[in-house]
Amino acid sequence: MDPDALATAFVEHYYTTFDSNRAGLANLYQEGSMFTFEGQKIQGSSNIVAKLTSLPFQQCKHNISTVDCQPSGPAGGMLVFVSGTLQLAGEQHALKFSQMFHLMPTPQGSFYVFNDIFRLNYA
Amino acid sequence: MDPDALATAFVEHYYTTFDSNRAGLANLYQEGSMFTFEGQKIQGSSNIVAKLTSLPFQQCKHNISTVDCQPSGPAGGMLVFVSGTLQLAGEQHALKFSQMFHLMPTPQGSFYVFNDIFRLNYA
Repeated sequence: MDPDALATAFVEHYYTTFDSNRAGLANLYQEGSMFTFEGQKIQGSSNIVAKLTSLPFQQCKHNISTVDCQPSGPAGGMLVFVSGTLQLAGEQHALKFSQMFHLMPTPQGSFYVFNDIFRLNYA
Repeated sequence: MDPDALATAFVEHYYTTFDSNRAGLANLYQEGSMFTFEGQKIQGSSNIVAKLTSLPFQQCKHNISTVDCQPSGPAGGMLVFVSGTLQLAGEQHALKFSQMFHLMPTPQGSFYVFNDIFRLNYA
């Protein structure tokens, strides 16, 4: 699978899961995974999912504008850079966001999220 | 030097150099470095600087809003995620942008840019 197709498939899976079943993101992270959400640093799959599921909205819909990817080095990792908008239920205006993921290969031939940084892009 | 301080110092150096002497960015990249600019993929220090110096504006000023960083793995790399605005000479409105860098250590104890992805965040 070529890197761009893999990045796009990951992004679709990630945000579809986020918008339908946030707790289901747990198996994309491992104990060493890092997440920085609006400047707050969180480590480990269970802490990351606790943060994601505690965000103060129930329903949301991500719309992706751009996906860029690059290999991160000889360890087989991949950097995925996303921009898009986040529509919260009951809010008139969508929020713009940028997010980057560093995906690392698993022994099973899949990938997990080692690094994750999220920022809203305020107007 | 702690990672956040190092990331902030890098970001200040990078954009100050960009705004005053774009060609001076050449020594921050190496031949294996990758740059994705608005979806266009470019590799190698000389090609990257050729792209940066050919951008269709002479004067610009970056203003940084946020800097986030995380270690990228056992090789000693660091991910730096930036959001901010770019003011072009003669333009009324600043452009919002997001950019990520993957810094890798050099044998001399410094860092170079291995990955660089830039996107404007259109309203």
